[in-house]
Amino acid sequence: MPILNKDMQLCVSFAARPSNIGTRFHNYLYDELDLNFVYKAFAPVDIEQAVLGVRGLPIRGASVSMPFKEAVIPLVDRMHASATAIDSVNTIVNDDGVLTAYNTDYLAVESLLRTHAVDPSASVVLRGSGGMAKAVLAAFAGVGFEDLTVVARNETAGRALAQRYGARWSAHEETGRVLVNVTPLGMAGAEAETQSFSDSVVAAAEVVFDVVALPSETPLISAARAAGKQVITGAEVIALQAAEQFELYTGVRLSADQVRRASEFSRA
Amino acid sequence: MPILNKDMQLCVSFAARPSNIGTRFHNYLYDELDLNFVYKAFAPVDIEQAVLGVRGLPIRGASVSMPFKEAVIPLVDRMHASATAIDSVNTIVNDDGVLTAYNTDYLAVESLLRTHAVDPSASVVLRGSGGMAKAVLAAFAGVGFEDLTVVARNETAGRALAQRYGARWSAHEETGRVLVNVTPLGMAGAEAETQSFSDSVVAAAEVVFDVVALPSETPLISAARAAGKQVITGAEVIALQAAEQFELYTGVRLSADQVRRASEFSRA
Repeated sequence: MPILNKDMQLCVSFAARPSNIGTRFHNYLYDELDLNFVYKAFAPVDIEQAVLGVRGLPIRGASVSMPFKEAVIPLVDRMHASATAIDSVNTIVNDDGVLTAYNTDYLAVESLLRTHAVDPSASVVLRGSGGMAKAVLAAFAGVGFEDLTVVARNETAGRALAQRYGARWSAHEETGRVLVNVTPLGMAGAEAETQSFSDSVVAAAEVVFDVVALPSETPLISAARAAGKQVITGAEVIALQAAEQFELYTGVRLSADQVRRASEFSRA
Repeated sequence: MPILNKDMQLCVSFAARPSNIGTRFHNYLYDELDLNFVYKAFAPVDIEQAVLGVRGLPIRGASVSMPFKEAVIPLVDRMHASATAIDSVNTIVNDDGVLTAYNTDYLAVESLLRTHAVDPSASVVLRGSGGMAKAVLAAFAGVGFEDLTVVARNETAGRALAQRYGARWSAHEETGRVLVNVTPLGMAGAEAETQSFSDSVVAAAEVVFDVVALPSETPLISAARAAGKQVITGAEVIALQAAEQFELYTGVRLSADQVRRASEFSRA
C-alpha cells in the first residue's frame, strides 16, 4: 500500500446511505492514474457543517446524493447552469475556498443527446416525475427539444414537472419518436420484468432511452434492440456522469475504456 | 493498493504547515494492523469551519498543531483534564458528534514520569517557557512534584509560567535532582552543538530529561549518559504522545516495537 501523504487531495460523497460504488470507482482510477487523491463516502450527521468542512479543511470535491441535493444549494458560492436548471446539486467543486455546484446527471444526459445525435425536432415521451426525471427532461429542453410529453400517473407531480420545462402532461402512454424511461420499471427488484413502454409504442419510435442502470439491459432496452431501434442506456448515463465528476475534481478526462473498467470494478 | 471503502474512518491533522510525519506514522500502522482508517494532514483555510467539518462529516479524530492549539478550545464540547491543565489542545476525538479535546503531550510526559519512576519529592529544574514547556511543567505538577524551578531568560514568560504551576523562576541555570530541557538547545540547526545544562549541573543531577527529539541524542543526553545518569529522551515523548493519540482514535494500544517502527518509517 502506498502510504498517503500530506499533499494528497480528498474528495468525498454525502449520502444518507452511502454505497461503495463511488468510493471504489474514484479510488480505482486514482490508483491506476497515479493521482495523489483519495475518495471517501460519508453519511453526514449535519449537512451544513459537512459543507462548511469542505471549505474549511479544505476538501477538493463532494458528490451529493439523496437527501441532500437541494439542501446544499444555500451553502455553496456559485451554481453552475446544470444545477440551476433543476434546482439540484450532485457535485460540489472547491476552488481555493470557492464552492461551485454542478449537476453531472444533467450534463451527462445533455452530452449523450449530442453524441447520439438525437434530432431536437423529434417528439419526446418521457415516463417519470421524480428527481432524475427532472434532470433528464431539463437536459432535453436545454439541448433544444420542444415537443416534450411527460407521462406520469401522479398528476400533481407530472403536471408540475411538465409545466416547468414547457412539456405536456399525460396520464397514459403515448407514441413519440424518442421514448425515455425514468421510472424504476425494469430495475432489479419487484418490477424487473416490467417493460416501461409497450411493444407497439416501441415499434413506432426511433430512439429508446432507459435511465435504469441496474441492469442496463432492461426489458425495454431488449425490446428496442430487437426492433432495431437506436438505444441509450442507463449504464451510459451513470458512466458519463461519473466521468464528468471525475474531470471536475481532477482535471483528467477519462477514456471510455477507463470508465468501463472502473465501473465494472465499482460494482464487483 | 487496497481500495478504500465507505466504512473507512478518517482521521486528520490541522497545522499551518503540515509535515508528512503524522500522516506516515498513522497510515503505516493502519496498514500493518489492517485497520479500516485513513489519516490525512490538512492546512485548514478556516479552523472553525474545519472543526465543524469534523463533527458534520463526521471525522473520527483530529490532531491539532500550531497555531490552532488554543483556537479550537471554544469549538469542542468537552475538555479533558490534560487539555484544561495547559489550555492547549493537540487531539480532538469525535464520539458520535461529541468532540472531546485532549493534550497527549501532557499525557505522554505524565506517563513517562511514572514509568521511569521519577521520585516526586525530587527538585526539578526546567529550562524553557514556551508551549511545550507549559505542558511538561504542568505534567510534573500534575504528578505531584512540588519543588519546581523554571529557568528562562524571558522574565515575563518565565515568571508567568512558574506562577501558574507553583514553581519558582530563575534567570540562570541552577542545580536540581531532575533537569529538564524544553528549549531548542541541542536541536538540529543553529544550536545543535549547545548543551542546555552544563557538565557540573549534570554531574549534580540524578535524572536528565531532554524534550528535543531531532536528534534525540542531544549534547545534553550524551553528557548525561556519559555521567551515568538516568535519561528520558524527546524520542520517548514523541512516540508516546503519538501512541496515546493512536489509541484515542482507534482503541488500539500500540506495542513499543510498533511505535518504534512507525516512528522510524514516519521520518524516513
